[in-house]
Amino acid sequence: MINTVRPVEELIARLKQLPSIGYKTAERLAYFLLNASDEDAKGLAEAIIRVKDTVKTCSICYNIAEEETCAICRDATRQNDMICVVEEPKDIFAIEKTGKFHGRYHVLMGSVSPLDGIGPEDLTIDDLVGRIRQGGIQEVIIATDSDTEGESTAICIAQKLKPLPVTVTRLAYGLPVGSDIEYADPASLSLALEGRKEM
Amino acid sequence: MINTVRPVEELIARLKQLPSIGYKTAERLAYFLLNASDEDAKGLAEAIIRVKDTVKTCSICYNIAEEETCAICRDATRQNDMICVVEEPKDIFAIEKTGKFHGRYHVLMGSVSPLDGIGPEDLTIDDLVGRIRQGGIQEVIIATDSDTEGESTAICIAQKLKPLPVTVTRLAYGLPVGSDIEYADPASLSLALEGRKEM
Repeated sequence: MINTVRPVEELIARLKQLPSIGYKTAERLAYFLLNASDEDAKGLAEAIIRVKDTVKTCSICYNIAEEETCAICRDATRQNDMICVVEEPKDIFAIEKTGKFHGRYHVLMGSVSPLDGIGPEDLTIDDLVGRIRQGGIQEVIIATDSDTEGESTAICIAQKLKPLPVTVTRLAYGLPVGSDIEYADPASLSLALEGRKEM
Repeated sequence: MINTVRPVEELIARLKQLPSIGYKTAERLAYFLLNASDEDAKGLAEAIIRVKDTVKTCSICYNIAEEETCAICRDATRQNDMICVVEEPKDIFAIEKTGKFHGRYHVLMGSVSPLDGIGPEDLTIDDLVGRIRQGGIQEVIIATDSDTEGESTAICIAQKLKPLPVTVTRLAYGLPVGSDIEYADPASLSLALEGRKEM
């Protein structure tokens, strides 16, 4: 392959390590960056470096933070009696967008996945138990994903929290809003039937 | 949106500028980089900076180059009497992979696209004419894309080269190898019929 220019090949190799980026996409991105203005391309490089240098993990809830604790944990106007448990910091963003939850969060930093060798002890469940033991928490809402790993994780946490004086709830299952019954998967549809509400 | 950490938002915005990367993918990539090792994430940032700082355009053929001229233009073992004209440097890589062409290249740096305001004068066609005027070129193979823009560009170049003593050829059209006649598009199939060869 005579057309190989080492720095370009290296950039393609680096881009290919990103999730869901194959060789062809990595190549397209590399040539895009090659043709982009210096400002745009180096702006991206600097944004990556800045994230690595400045973004920390909140010492209370494991959310991303620019300081020792995150903006949500520092916010005095939020309810202290509810904790919503999520797998990843970006899940917080999704829940915040609903505007329906005003309590605190706890990020597990993953989910139980025996195939990947991740057990409950690799998650931040002990810290969650610690936070509840400090008192003041009425309800823990488990908002892990609705896949097998998220479900096992939810069950694990529910068991660990059983001895503690908190109500443990899980997000409701059902049809996604705006969906077609015709195309609904049988699992969601049967849970939607079970959870039906009087109108 | 209280979960906004400025450097993360900035990285997402930068990633979103890349081609075919939407907000959700940019978010996923940003969180991936956030969780990646410092070495991997900063390695990518440095690879981008290195490409911008070291990769140049070949002064003869407009291919990417680490020096004043590219590796292909410097290669004394290649034929001097053929030039293959392509739209982008990465097209050279595709043709080199066939191992069937041993001449020189000329990169147009784009294709004629009236909708984007790109006319023939914005491409490197004049430099191509200059290279041919210097003599020694027998054949110019036009290997632009087989879409509307590539086709218009090919016609433009063919017209410009008409007064010059060179044979101008275009890559053959037909069925892609390994394809199913049943699913072939009518345009390729009719060109495959027209260009049929005795067995």
